[in-house]
Amino acid sequence: MKTTAKYMDFKTKLIASWAKNDSLLSVGLDPNMDMLPAHLRSDKTPFFTFNKAIIDATADAVCAFKPNSAFYEARGADGIAELKQTCDYIRDEYPHIPLILDFKRGDIGNTNNHYVAFAFDYLQADAVTVQPYQGYLAVKPFLDCKEKGVMVLCRTSNPGSEEFQDLMVNGRELYLEVAENVKNQWNYNDNCQLVVGATDPAAMAEIRELAGDDMIFLVPGLGAQGGEPGPTVKAGLNKDGTGLVINSSRAIIYASDGEDFAEAARAEALKARDEINSYRSQA
Amino acid sequence: MKTTAKYMDFKTKLIASWAKNDSLLSVGLDPNMDMLPAHLRSDKTPFFTFNKAIIDATADAVCAFKPNSAFYEARGADGIAELKQTCDYIRDEYPHIPLILDFKRGDIGNTNNHYVAFAFDYLQADAVTVQPYQGYLAVKPFLDCKEKGVMVLCRTSNPGSEEFQDLMVNGRELYLEVAENVKNQWNYNDNCQLVVGATDPAAMAEIRELAGDDMIFLVPGLGAQGGEPGPTVKAGLNKDGTGLVINSSRAIIYASDGEDFAEAARAEALKARDEINSYRSQA
Repeated sequence: MKTTAKYMDFKTKLIASWAKNDSLLSVGLDPNMDMLPAHLRSDKTPFFTFNKAIIDATADAVCAFKPNSAFYEARGADGIAELKQTCDYIRDEYPHIPLILDFKRGDIGNTNNHYVAFAFDYLQADAVTVQPYQGYLAVKPFLDCKEKGVMVLCRTSNPGSEEFQDLMVNGRELYLEVAENVKNQWNYNDNCQLVVGATDPAAMAEIRELAGDDMIFLVPGLGAQGGEPGPTVKAGLNKDGTGLVINSSRAIIYASDGEDFAEAARAEALKARDEINSYRSQA
Repeated sequence: MKTTAKYMDFKTKLIASWAKNDSLLSVGLDPNMDMLPAHLRSDKTPFFTFNKAIIDATADAVCAFKPNSAFYEARGADGIAELKQTCDYIRDEYPHIPLILDFKRGDIGNTNNHYVAFAFDYLQADAVTVQPYQGYLAVKPFLDCKEKGVMVLCRTSNPGSEEFQDLMVNGRELYLEVAENVKNQWNYNDNCQLVVGATDPAAMAEIRELAGDDMIFLVPGLGAQGGEPGPTVKAGLNKDGTGLVINSSRAIIYASDGEDFAEAARAEALKARDEINSYRSQA
């Protein structure tokens, strides 16, 4: 379905997208040659062909698409070209669906200008994920892009995330310090979000309490990583019944490794959306 | 000069390289279209052509080359192809010079496997820079590559680095906690290094004290960022008179924007190497 593209900032676009598809679900476009359906492995553009089918099959079930750059970089320049094809396709065919580039970059400000060029000029993503460790002055080139979303790693979903994130600073965990700084200092363009994993609902509830109802969370960790929709929705939903972009990658895109992979992905996406919505209606 | 390539782990290769060129200097290969000599801007592969000339002109003055991925990503798939050309050229022509891919990646373990493929299979770098925030279990796919260097951000050179890095945890700054964990837990393959900016010699001295003489520091921040070789060498040199990879990018590669850019880069690189060495001999 081709609609007329119109300029919109990330937050406005996301709010509209939540409503249009009645969905908080993001599908992670993380293609991996070893996991692709066998009939696609000899395709000339295997990642793009795979993604296109997944995108078309799930576009009415999601609030966002989120390709992770790592999977494309693994195939070098060819992979990056297919990442661009994927981003162009989403923007051309589904201009109302926000495109989140998950690349978790972080460098000094001068260098971050070049990551900005990659994300926002070359790929024309609506939002990116970034690292907090170098502080907000380093991240400023991203933050200064008013119309773009800047999703800052706060509490990640991986085993071992507690090593530094749970250290106590100023009487509370480091991830809460990150959340507060992002809310009070980084968010001068009202374009910051937080990355909060589904694997620790107690931490998510604390972060919601601290960051308030206006802060949007990108939530990885559902499915393969062990996060569950019920506790996630309970801990993270805001007063409007939204505030969350809940991502699932492997459980959806690899639902089948046969020729029916796109249909199977659609079925899983609808199931995930509906399950999330069942908890929203209870909240 | 083509020498016979032989397999060597990063640390062994670096130690040999320090000695061969009597140099602790790394040249940062960070090409930027706006800064390239005018006559190269219409070149078919402007970044590779620029880099090749810089590499040939400085190869006997450096201990390492360090391309930063951001500058190549800014030009998308074409930029990545030129990054690969650059890495291939260094490996083919100067197999004794360590190649550090500065990409500051960090994600969950499953995803980091794909960044490993980009860095070590596709580009065949000898070492990479990584983010600490997600903890060592996330970084494990890098750490498990025994022969590769894993350079962990510890104290960065950018303005604002203190926002989180200087927070007190367990009675000391977070950057010291990172240094200690890397030394005691991450370094099980003896392949970890720390990234310690030249802009804060006092912090560098503390980190040297804590991490010991065997820990190698990658030191950005010389030149354009304000770091100076004298205080850096004084604070960071180990008991062997080495232990440092001191990087300079802009001050060397953009020493001239004319047709003499490679000669000018060579002159700056020799000057920087010799200045560093003058402080080494005083230490």
